[in-house]
Amino acid sequence: MADLRSAFLNVYSQLKSELLQDPSFEFTDDSRQWVDRMLEYNVPGGKLNRGLSVIDSYRLLKEGKELTQDEIFQASALGWCIEWLQAYFLVLDDIMDNSHTRRGQPCWFRVPKVGLIAVNDGVLLRNHIGRILKNHFRGKPYYVDLLDLFNEVEFQTASGQMIDLITTLEGEKDLSKYSLSKHRRIVQYKTAYYSFYLSVACALVMAGENLDNHVDVKNILVDMGIYFQVQDDYLDCFGNPETIGKIGTDIEDFKCSWLVVKALEICNEEQKKVLHENYGKPDPVNVAKVKALYNELNLKGVFEEYESSSYEKLVSSIDAHPSKAVQAVLKSFLGKIYKRQK
Amino acid sequence: MADLRSAFLNVYSQLKSELLQDPSFEFTDDSRQWVDRMLEYNVPGGKLNRGLSVIDSYRLLKEGKELTQDEIFQASALGWCIEWLQAYFLVLDDIMDNSHTRRGQPCWFRVPKVGLIAVNDGVLLRNHIGRILKNHFRGKPYYVDLLDLFNEVEFQTASGQMIDLITTLEGEKDLSKYSLSKHRRIVQYKTAYYSFYLSVACALVMAGENLDNHVDVKNILVDMGIYFQVQDDYLDCFGNPETIGKIGTDIEDFKCSWLVVKALEICNEEQKKVLHENYGKPDPVNVAKVKALYNELNLKGVFEEYESSSYEKLVSSIDAHPSKAVQAVLKSFLGKIYKRQK
Repeated sequence: MADLRSAFLNVYSQLKSELLQDPSFEFTDDSRQWVDRMLEYNVPGGKLNRGLSVIDSYRLLKEGKELTQDEIFQASALGWCIEWLQAYFLVLDDIMDNSHTRRGQPCWFRVPKVGLIAVNDGVLLRNHIGRILKNHFRGKPYYVDLLDLFNEVEFQTASGQMIDLITTLEGEKDLSKYSLSKHRRIVQYKTAYYSFYLSVACALVMAGENLDNHVDVKNILVDMGIYFQVQDDYLDCFGNPETIGKIGTDIEDFKCSWLVVKALEICNEEQKKVLHENYGKPDPVNVAKVKALYNELNLKGVFEEYESSSYEKLVSSIDAHPSKAVQAVLKSFLGKIYKRQK
Repeated sequence: MADLRSAFLNVYSQLKSELLQDPSFEFTDDSRQWVDRMLEYNVPGGKLNRGLSVIDSYRLLKEGKELTQDEIFQASALGWCIEWLQAYFLVLDDIMDNSHTRRGQPCWFRVPKVGLIAVNDGVLLRNHIGRILKNHFRGKPYYVDLLDLFNEVEFQTASGQMIDLITTLEGEKDLSKYSLSKHRRIVQYKTAYYSFYLSVACALVMAGENLDNHVDVKNILVDMGIYFQVQDDYLDCFGNPETIGKIGTDIEDFKCSWLVVKALEICNEEQKKVLHENYGKPDPVNVAKVKALYNELNLKGVFEEYESSSYEKLVSSIDAHPSKAVQAVLKSFLGKIYKRQK
């Protein structure tokens, strides 16, 4: 496991040095150093789950056949494209959300002398994906499919982010804008495509598959992504802070969480008033009232029911898939998240 | 001329409605309205020179052969992709530069309730290019070349913007960072590729040409773009404000202008001191001292010499080109900018 990770990180180093020598641009010493530091700060420091999944998925699709060095390198490069995409989103999201820390360090735009240059750095991160794909996949028959895939998933992510921003940030806090259907849309577009579908799609494309024939795989992974985000929302309130590594603040932050939209759906008029009066306020007294209402509505039980019914639906969709290799990929994803506590 | 423009604007309306019905995303009413308003505010309101050039250039490449309706539509769609790219850069640049107005109206991020959502809107504008190309060129043999072209030009533009930002904005005003070579690099990458090369490249690709065989055309257009920007820098100080429609403030704004880098190159130690003491200060007294020095150094004459020698070089490069049709395209560009007063 540690070996896999360090092999994966070696590919990062190679991709980075290629980018710093890109013949399409004449770097000055200053700008080369800037990009180097910006990449080190933003790209390799995450959990790398999305990136590593491309290699895992590709291996499963190959049904135990030993991968060549080239295949491992290429799957890793695609994995890094997803990590670059993630870095790009995070750098820009942190600016828009006015966040303070990310992965245990100040957000990139808060680093001295960076500031809003971070907007352009985000753009550069996105552009690096095109450079990496061109350097390593230009001659492949599936090159254009990779370009289309990254373009479409980026478009979907930015569109989901747009709904989130205009719902949450635009002007006044207004709970009546929140609904289960809007929550599903935000989560599906903002998170599920790039966090769940994209790595498997990359592996399928590399294995020579036409993605048009795998709409069912996409749907299953998107559903898994939604389920994952609902867990996230649940754990923010009901998880053990020591296990999840942070203290949730979705209630204080007026987040469009699955818990609040579910509560809005099942509550009576009186309870709705409690939500409207207390949701999105920093005072612990208000937060406690919201949590008490969540308990009154038995959201824990509602979540557990959601969790088992989602799981059953996912398992039966996966079992219905004609390919055992694809089933293995999907089950491996599901196994990693079912009943997770963090 | 007005007809061409209005036909071009009709294509914009069609592209916009396709984007607002994109099947890859489930719009809410709010988000569809948001994108509609964002596009109207940022995309069609410019001079449209870059976009219209694709049609002009394609027509010249076809040597007078009547274009089909499909060809006109496709060249227009590519033209609009460039206008979308420009809108994307401007929305983000205005945020980074903390600008106030653009095309005679407040910058998009300054519109009430927009704010930093404009960062994501910039990203969406970029993503629309991929959607437009996919909708209208997916089946063409040159589809992948268009994707590569837009990716590469965007990368070059963002890289040029990076040098500009880290030279101009990062911390203290320091004239010693400015040089003719850095000026050339900023201008070439930040402006010339997307403003001059890209429209001709789109027309060449549509005409079935392989861009690898047209490196000479690229070099000529990039040189023209540099020449154009030097004119811009010159006119900012020496142009007639009534003709150019604004009062230049490059000196006050500590801009890395061709005038200041040329002055730094040819001045003596004493004159250099005058520059260091007066450049980049808002007081008219300081500005006047810089202008007096420019006159002392005869920058007007130096510019005129630069202008004629650039023109001669460009003409002889164009005449050396084997294709009369390509020559016509390049000469049409050069004719539009040579000795321009605005």
